[in-house]
Amino acid sequence: MSEVMEKIGRNARSAARILALASTETKNAALMAMASSVRRSANAIADANAQDLADAGTKGLKESFVDRLTLTQLRIEAMAKGLEDIASLPDPVGTVTSEWARPNGMMISRVRVPIGVIGIIYESRPNVTADAGGLCLKSGNAAILRGGSDSHRSSLAIASCLVEGLREAGLPEYAIQLVPGSDRSYVGEMLSGLNNCIDLIVPRGGKSLVKRVQQEARVPVFSHLEGICHVYVDKAADPAMARRIVLNAKMRRTGVCGAAESVLVDRSGSESNLKPLINELISAGCEIRGDAAAQAADARVKPATEEDWSTEYLDAIISVKVVDGVGEAMSHIARYGSQHTDAIVTEDQAVAERFLKEVDSAIVLHNASTQFADGGEFGFGAEIGIATGKLHARGPVGVEQLTTFKYQVRGSGQTRP
Amino acid sequence: MSEVMEKIGRNARSAARILALASTETKNAALMAMASSVRRSANAIADANAQDLADAGTKGLKESFVDRLTLTQLRIEAMAKGLEDIASLPDPVGTVTSEWARPNGMMISRVRVPIGVIGIIYESRPNVTADAGGLCLKSGNAAILRGGSDSHRSSLAIASCLVEGLREAGLPEYAIQLVPGSDRSYVGEMLSGLNNCIDLIVPRGGKSLVKRVQQEARVPVFSHLEGICHVYVDKAADPAMARRIVLNAKMRRTGVCGAAESVLVDRSGSESNLKPLINELISAGCEIRGDAAAQAADARVKPATEEDWSTEYLDAIISVKVVDGVGEAMSHIARYGSQHTDAIVTEDQAVAERFLKEVDSAIVLHNASTQFADGGEFGFGAEIGIATGKLHARGPVGVEQLTTFKYQVRGSGQTRP
Repeated sequence: MSEVMEKIGRNARSAARILALASTETKNAALMAMASSVRRSANAIADANAQDLADAGTKGLKESFVDRLTLTQLRIEAMAKGLEDIASLPDPVGTVTSEWARPNGMMISRVRVPIGVIGIIYESRPNVTADAGGLCLKSGNAAILRGGSDSHRSSLAIASCLVEGLREAGLPEYAIQLVPGSDRSYVGEMLSGLNNCIDLIVPRGGKSLVKRVQQEARVPVFSHLEGICHVYVDKAADPAMARRIVLNAKMRRTGVCGAAESVLVDRSGSESNLKPLINELISAGCEIRGDAAAQAADARVKPATEEDWSTEYLDAIISVKVVDGVGEAMSHIARYGSQHTDAIVTEDQAVAERFLKEVDSAIVLHNASTQFADGGEFGFGAEIGIATGKLHARGPVGVEQLTTFKYQVRGSGQTRP
Repeated sequence: MSEVMEKIGRNARSAARILALASTETKNAALMAMASSVRRSANAIADANAQDLADAGTKGLKESFVDRLTLTQLRIEAMAKGLEDIASLPDPVGTVTSEWARPNGMMISRVRVPIGVIGIIYESRPNVTADAGGLCLKSGNAAILRGGSDSHRSSLAIASCLVEGLREAGLPEYAIQLVPGSDRSYVGEMLSGLNNCIDLIVPRGGKSLVKRVQQEARVPVFSHLEGICHVYVDKAADPAMARRIVLNAKMRRTGVCGAAESVLVDRSGSESNLKPLINELISAGCEIRGDAAAQAADARVKPATEEDWSTEYLDAIISVKVVDGVGEAMSHIARYGSQHTDAIVTEDQAVAERFLKEVDSAIVLHNASTQFADGGEFGFGAEIGIATGKLHARGPVGVEQLTTFKYQVRGSGQTRP
């Protein structure tokens, strides 16, 4: 264990003890002060980002990468606004989620408490610094942030605004720490849990990062490796609604994890649904890879390979398969899906309920777009990510999911017989 | 991966899909049929146990070990009764734990669903076979049971009763599988997750087993390594209540994880509390290892070493320390405790609330014995163990904690702007 990381871990743990007891007012004051500091430092942040971008340019990185790295004034303002939004969320800490009396008179309460220290490992987006730091603070957790080396100057500029906010509110500066420099071994040390100083890791980035974190972490991880989301168009679907939902699920934003990657069309309804669906998608600029039935419906459909059914395109490409009813649709989803988000379009309530009950995904939707897989859209205010693991958090991870609980037992001298 | 374990994993996964959709009635029918089968097979179980015991005797094992291994007719009946008790518990699966409408008209429900496949690794107690199998079934999970090699014949006899119950109720026999033979490499394969066929591991046994599971498991684990439980006797404690609670917390059963291992006595109240407490414990046959103040109070108190403060005796031994108020008590607990169960005895409500809020343990009690750290005592009906991890389950792990949830979203054609 490096001296640098050991110290960061120890400081985070001691900050976490103070944060766990901080009042809602103090935490919100820190968040508001952070937002002000980000606004005041907009130019300094932009300058730091320009240096990161200059380096990125010289290294010949991909355009999408450079876009993620770029902080415009608009994006800096959005960061400040994001911190204010987090301040306005209800504080989950201290909430009594259930309470009951025992026959012997003891009262047992289940009370939300912070998890402790959360490690966030991210890539090029420097704004994750503010989002993740703010969400951890609101939920009473200390944060150890490890951003990508390409955006390190930008992250540093943002992190110093966060620390300023903590200081102004009288909270420990170690509550949010940015791992210094770009030593890659630090990531491995975080994944080892820093001598029990990290309780949870949240990776934010591409598939290779998430895969490494899932494989190597010795502490719990909230993550999703991929979102292979399906829309099943039942024979009893309203054809116009099916077209609208599929188009939105695929094309609203193709790069998000809730974007649909496969459409399954019920053979019985394929007469009215298949051709118009394919046509609408192609008109919108989407490439279609289909099975024989889909290819027969439209000459522009390319043949799908076995691999296509389990591919997350994150692009304007979708696979289309004709299935024999909801049963085959659910079998296909169980086999090729990623237990992230799947939707059914149908006017048949019984079929819809069966799908909602039987499909084993974090989010299952009836007559709504898979692109609603998002903490904001769920009303959580903000999310640190989406979890496809089944334990603790599942689906959007907001401030509430960043807490755990304890049992408080109030007695009057009870001993156990 | 061995062929044996790969097949067990695959069969468990497919059984889990059926179990997840099984009705409460079917699951309860299976549990009742299992109980009948255990009663009908009491002699066969006793015979198998006698063979295990004969082997154990020839190997010269410890008496406590032999006791854990022994199945009397009373213990066999208790197993049958335990299965009936699990049948009478409410079924957590399908419960809607929260539900809300979004401004766009979508209804979001959070619904309890089973976790999937649970691996239980245990040692000499063959009755864990019935307890764990029954709890997993009730919560809709498939179980893979790996018992100790010393109790293998007993576990096998019990498992065949469980399978008979499953069969009678028309549920898949693979819903509860006992790992055959005593190949130790099977444990390692279970800890690897059996190619994603195990979602969760629960170890039931001694510290070395739990430690190995925690260190090697590649899937989530519900466990506690040790219960270093404290009772803090505040200056405002009712002295008689303090004596009763400390005596019960230590001596009711010394071998359970909720047994107290350390008493902290407030210096301000030590005049009235310390001597009588020590006297009562010693009269009850408890050895005391104390700091200077405790030694000064009673000549029979042995000196405590630094190691004593973090020792789980699981025996009639307790460490006693005099502290300066609740602040020092909580610092001591934070440093030496195991975040399992800690209690305060005081008539001062403000001090009690501070302790309940600030001590970061799964269970914190006011004026009640630490021996209440138990799923039955919490009203959970039965528990598969106690968890000191902070994610998902914390404290007693009952049927509810063996479930996860999913979000069901009901829309009317919503697309995301």
